Formats: sequence, structure tokens, C-alpha cells
Amino acid sequence: MEAEIIAVGTELLLGDILNTNAQFLARQLADLGVSVRYQHVVGDNAARLEDLVRTAKARSELLVFSGGLGPTADDLTKETVARRYHDALRFDQEEMDKITAFFAKSGRTTPANNEKQAMVPVRGKKLPNRNGTAPGVWFEDEGRYAVLLPGPPHELIPLWNEQALPLLQPLCQGTLHSLTLKVTGPGESHLEETVGHLFRSANPTAAIYAKTGECHIRITAKAATAAEAEAMCRAKAQQFYHILGECVYGENEDTLESVTVAALRRARLTLTTAESCTGGLVARRITDVPGASEVFGFGFVTYANQAKEQLLGVPGEVLAAHGAVSPQTAAWMAAGARRAAGADLALALTGLAGPGGGTPEKPVGLVYLAAAFRDRLYIRKLGLGGRGRETVRLRASQTALDLARRLTLGLPLPDDTQIVAADRLAEEMR
Amino acid sequence: MEAEIIAVGTELLLGDILNTNAQFLARQLADLGVSVRYQHVVGDNAARLEDLVRTAKARSELLVFSGGLGPTADDLTKETVARRYHDALRFDQEEMDKITAFFAKSGRTTPANNEKQAMVPVRGKKLPNRNGTAPGVWFEDEGRYAVLLPGPPHELIPLWNEQALPLLQPLCQGTLHSLTLKVTGPGESHLEETVGHLFRSANPTAAIYAKTGECHIRITAKAATAAEAEAMCRAKAQQFYHILGECVYGENEDTLESVTVAALRRARLTLTTAESCTGGLVARRITDVPGASEVFGFGFVTYANQAKEQLLGVPGEVLAAHGAVSPQTAAWMAAGARRAAGADLALALTGLAGPGGGTPEKPVGLVYLAAAFRDRLYIRKLGLGGRGRETVRLRASQTALDLARRLTLGLPLPDDTQIVAADRLAEEMR
Repeated sequence: MEAEIIAVGTELLLGDILNTNAQFLARQLADLGVSVRYQHVVGDNAARLEDLVRTAKARSELLVFSGGLGPTADDLTKETVARRYHDALRFDQEEMDKITAFFAKSGRTTPANNEKQAMVPVRGKKLPNRNGTAPGVWFEDEGRYAVLLPGPPHELIPLWNEQALPLLQPLCQGTLHSLTLKVTGPGESHLEETVGHLFRSANPTAAIYAKTGECHIRITAKAATAAEAEAMCRAKAQQFYHILGECVYGENEDTLESVTVAALRRARLTLTTAESCTGGLVARRITDVPGASEVFGFGFVTYANQAKEQLLGVPGEVLAAHGAVSPQTAAWMAAGARRAAGADLALALTGLAGPGGGTPEKPVGLVYLAAAFRDRLYIRKLGLGGRGRETVRLRASQTALDLARRLTLGLPLPDDTQIVAADRLAEEMR
Repeated sequence: MEAEIIAVGTELLLGDILNTNAQFLARQLADLGVSVRYQHVVGDNAARLEDLVRTAKARSELLVFSGGLGPTADDLTKETVARRYHDALRFDQEEMDKITAFFAKSGRTTPANNEKQAMVPVRGKKLPNRNGTAPGVWFEDEGRYAVLLPGPPHELIPLWNEQALPLLQPLCQGTLHSLTLKVTGPGESHLEETVGHLFRSANPTAAIYAKTGECHIRITAKAATAAEAEAMCRAKAQQFYHILGECVYGENEDTLESVTVAALRRARLTLTTAESCTGGLVARRITDVPGASEVFGFGFVTYANQAKEQLLGVPGEVLAAHGAVSPQTAAWMAAGARRAAGADLALALTGLAGPGGGTPEKPVGLVYLAAAFRDRLYIRKLGLGGRGRETVRLRASQTALDLARRLTLGLPLPDDTQIVAADRLAEEMR
């Protein structure tokens, strides 16, 4: 099956918003085995939309629309597409009741123009929208299909998954299944060397996406049944696991913070953070995870030296002798945070996020990471420069979370990790 | 002038990358006063590209292309577009020398297929690319123009600014200038009521964009000279300032955190944070600003009650009597953080970010914000529910930064702000 994706909205044509829906739909269609021939953006202009729909419908079996389903006079997608698919619209009381209830819930009366949103196809299908007032729409005309979805991604994505996919899957030959492996530690070029050969297969396919501080490997298999496609993905995933081992921190919706919090919960361990250069980013990422309060109670943002001394007990002599950005300061921060919070595991970060403040000995991007866990201190020196303040901070937080994950799960640590006995801190890190 | 934007690349059709170039080019063209009719994405397929170029050239004076200028056999944009603009390509030794030098610099020999990148138009212009090997191209055919730009944004953006803009500006009538006002406090519907009439003008135009916890008002004026367009924008901006006053926290590149840090610096005041539900987000936002260390030394993430007691001195009785999510706890957190950090101003946040943990009396989204400043405590009750954990946290951080900005600059506070004398904390907030 061949398809085109059509986004409707003047705000896209003006560049006011980024067309993330097109990327989402393109990936989804690729996973269904549908070839996308073109993507388009058109404004809220009936004549231009009609022109485009005529051309696209003539050459492609499936058109997927996003946006233009709102209540205003500008929103013309539904009427225009209905006409080209030889369908008409009728008023639907059930949808109208949902719209009225939606406005009533927020204490407002329904604006008159919202009746427009309650119009649904006569021959086609309405696709109920549980996250907004505009239902999606499905049109069919002699083997040509059109799916109309609302523009806001938090409405479009569930509507696609719950309503559009089940209608499309029977039209596509075979079934596709996808699996994403989340990898942290080795960089993209290193992955290319070690697992590059695994990307050169036709079914399942595997593709790599580089993110800040991690890579995602997406495996997609096509088979006659869902179970078969899933098994093929799993077998391919095993090949990656075999080589990458625990560098694969999770799959699909997992994030490094969710996996780390889950590992701590299972091990009944508590975590605390002492952050200088990351300024609260690690704490924020941990508390992004619902239920983080079970493992995280205390966090310290010790941006100033005085805060490192006062809150964490870093000795003034250590700061004076080695500076705030040093393995010694990082180690004392971790030990001090663990003690102050009464936590099992403490992460400490101190470094130069830039843009200013770098020297030849301590350049921007130099970050020391330390962890205090059981009877040991773990210290790493990281060079994260060259990509700007935000990237330094994000990569530093990534490395810290990964160290917590590895310590909690008893996994191997990076080769450059310096290990010091906690009771030797005062002697070895002075 | 009317235009279409055409991105060429199979990786876009597959959804492997997000089409940020389209947004960049759309904004740039809008600023030039060029109307973009359509945006398209097409794969590396000569027949489909040719089809699209034929249609688009017939209806639009300007076509702007991104991508498809690489060295491989797939990269067909230049040849295909040249044909439709009645031009041809010739080998350019100067470009070839640059390509050879580029490869030599990284110790590689030039692959043979790179000669393709050294092909430039016979009648049109080459647009030298100082960040990559593929030059841009300019075609002209009886009042119809095509600009071809390389796909990587770090090549496309400078090439557009330095080479394409100077060619396009003389073709566009007048000059455009834009100015963005950043507004926090009133919601979008409230803005519609108070300044809605200011959006209904043709030149300058004004448009509103809702973001989480703030709105942006973009003013664009068209005039014969840049100075005139700028003066028109400024006059329009004054109308907004007149009504919105200090709700306009900044302009253009300003962020609420950068403006707040700048205000604190000018006033030589220091800030500290005590965060429960936001879990470090406020501290992270403040330390996102380069130079934040001048005003921010200490931050506390007190997720657990024990942390609130131990680090901030919140009395156990207060927590027991009113709970962690209460105006009393927020007030004690702010007072305690200010004392522990020795700061001038302390912000404290405690609330329910969700998804779990809500009750009828204390629903998800209920957040108490407190500030300790000079001899007073300022307390606000916020209802931020209904949009998910991330939105609750972001809006809470926004409200906190805005309170710090208003206190620092001596601006009016929201009407619902409860004010308590700091020396009456123990009596009034027990």
C-alpha cells in the first residue's frame, strides 16, 4: 500500500510549530509496511487543500491527515475530504453530548460553533477521541482510504493507536512488530564497529538513532502473524544483547531514570544527589519518574563552594588544594551527601558546564562524577566538552544515572572508574 | 511572492529524522513577506521529484529545496531541478578543489563520486558552502526561482543566511522586522479578552503562541526600510506593554530564568530553592543560565518529609498537623531554606505532581509556593492539575520564577498572594 501524509494548518506553513506529527505517522506507516510517497503541509485554505487531495487520492491508496478538525470557520479538512471521497457529513448527537460535557466539566457553556465538531461521516466512520472534542474520521471510496486525525499530538497519538491502527492493519499484508533497545555507554561510532554488521539485514531491519548520551536501536520485523514478527524481533535483539550486554539499559518506553529508579526500588535502596555543574538536573530526572519518592528523599544543589562545605562537609582544605572541579571534591561530596541524607547510594557531580570558566588544565566539559555506595567510593573523570552547556549537563546526568544503575544491579563498571575504600577517604582524597 | 518548501530525503519519508529545516525555512520566508503555500517531503526518487517540481513551479514563483545534494546516485535534486528550470550543470574546478581539500584535511582521499557535488549551474549560480562539501544552487527561469540547500541544518542555516537571503531580499518588496514579547501570568483566554483587539491589524501583524506557563506574542512589521519596520514593531509593542505591564517579562531570546537571574544580579541579591514536587526543576532552570553562580549557591531538593525537617527545619508538628502539601509547610520550607543558605530570597514548592496521590481535598495539581524575602513570607495556592505530571511541574516552576522576578524588581504580586510577617511565622503558621 502507498500513502501520503497531509498536515493541515497555517501555523505549520508559517513555521510557528514543528511538524512532529509527520514524523510520528511516517514511522507508524513504515512499521505497517506502507510506503509513504510524499508528505505535505497545506494551510487552512479549502481550494488548495482540495487541489492537493485530488492529486494525492489519484496516486495513493491511503491519505493520512493531521489537523484542521477544530471548530472555527478555518477548519475545513473534514468537509473538503468528505467531498473528494464521495461522502457527506451528518450531525451526531452522541459526539455533541461529549462536547457539551467537556465544556460543562470546566464550567463553561459550549460555544455554538462546536456543533461543527459533532459532524461525522454518513458512509465512513467516526473515530472517537477521548482526549479532546474533535473526533477523528475514516473515509472509504472504492479501495481508497482517508484517515483524519486531530492536530494536537496528545490527541493524535492515542487516536492513531486505538482507532486508526486496527482499521489499517487488515489492509496491510503481513504484520509488523518493532522493538527499540536503549543503549548507553558506547558512542555511535563504537557501536558501528561492534554491532555494525547486525544493521545489514532486510527482515528484521535494524536502525540506529543517536541521542544525547545514548543510542536507540530500532528493530522491525515483518511476518504473517504478530507472534512470529515479535519472535523475529526478539531473536534479533538477542544478537545485540549478546554483544552489548548491560550497555542495553532498557527497551521501548524505558528511560535511564525509570530503569534506575526501578532497580533501586527492587533492591530497596535509597539514593541522594549532590550536584554542582548539573544544578539539579539529576534530581529532576529522578523525580520525573512517578513513585520516585520511594527511593529518593534528599537532593543537594551545591553550586557554591560554601554550600559544598556547609551541606556536604567537603573540607575547606580539599577545595583550596584541588579546586571545586577535582576528583577529591567529587568524592567528598558523594560521601557527605550520603551521610547527610542517610541514603544507601549518593551521586555527586562537579564540573565546568561552560561557556566560560575553562582553563587549559580544566577545560569546559571537564566533569568529575563520584558515587558513594556500601564501603567504597567510585570516581570518574569525564570529558564532555565541545557541544555546549546544555549537552555537557545532559551527558553528565546520563553518566551519573548509569553509574547508579550499574552499582545497584551489580554490573561491571567502566574501565576508567577509580575505586577508593570509603574509610580511606580522609587519607587518599586530601 | 508565493513559495513552496520541498525537502528531499527518504529518511524524512520514513520518519527517521524530524523536518526541522521546513520550520526554519517557513519562518524565514514569513519574515521576508513571502507566502508559503505548501511544504512537501519527497524521497530520493527522480520521477516523483520531477512530478512535484513541475506542479509546484507552475503555481509558485519560488521553490526552496533542502537535501538531496549529496554525492551518491540517490542524490538527484540538482539534475532534476536544473531540467525543469531549463538550465544545465557544468563541472566546477574550484568546488572540486574545495572538496579535495576537505577530504585531505581529514586524511582521506576524495571518493570518485564526489565529482557530482562539484557540478554547478551553467546559467544559475552556485552558493558556496563553507560547512560542507555540497554547494547550494540558485536557478532562475523567466521570473521563477529555485534555491537548493544542503540537508544538514548546520550547513543549511548559514548558507541560507549568507547566500540565499541576499539574493531573495531584492525580489521581495519592503523589509520585515519581528519582535517577540514573552508574557507570563495571564492565560491565553485572558489575553484574548484584554489585548485581543491588538491582534486584528494587518501591518504590523501580531500573533499569539501558547506555551506551558507562558505566551509569546510575535509582532511583525513590513516597511520600506529596516529602521521603519523596527519602529513600527516597537510602537505596536508599546500598546501591549501599556495593557499587560509587567506581565511582559522579556523579549525575543529572554527566558523567565535568564530575566530572573539578571534581575537578581543587578539587585545584588542571592536566591535559594527548596523543592519538593518540582524535585530540582527550579534549580536546574536557574543554573541553565550561564553565570547563575553569582546569585545561586545552594539548592535543596526535599522530597521526603524527613528532608524538610532535617535540612530546612520544618517542625514535625507542622507536617503532622497540615501535611507536606500545605501553605504552612511551604512557608516553613522557604524560611528554613533562606536561613540554611544565608540567601536573600528563598523559593519553596510543595505539591502533588501526580499521577497518583490525590484526594478530594488535595487533588493532583495542588501546589503551594512560598517565598521568603526581606521581612515577609509570600504564599500562593496554585491549581495546576489536568495536564499531567510534567506540566504540573513546569507550570509550578514558572510561577515560582515569576514570583522571584516580581519580588526582586518590586513589581505588583498576584492578588491571591498571602503575605505573612516573617517574625510571625511561628504564631501564624503552626
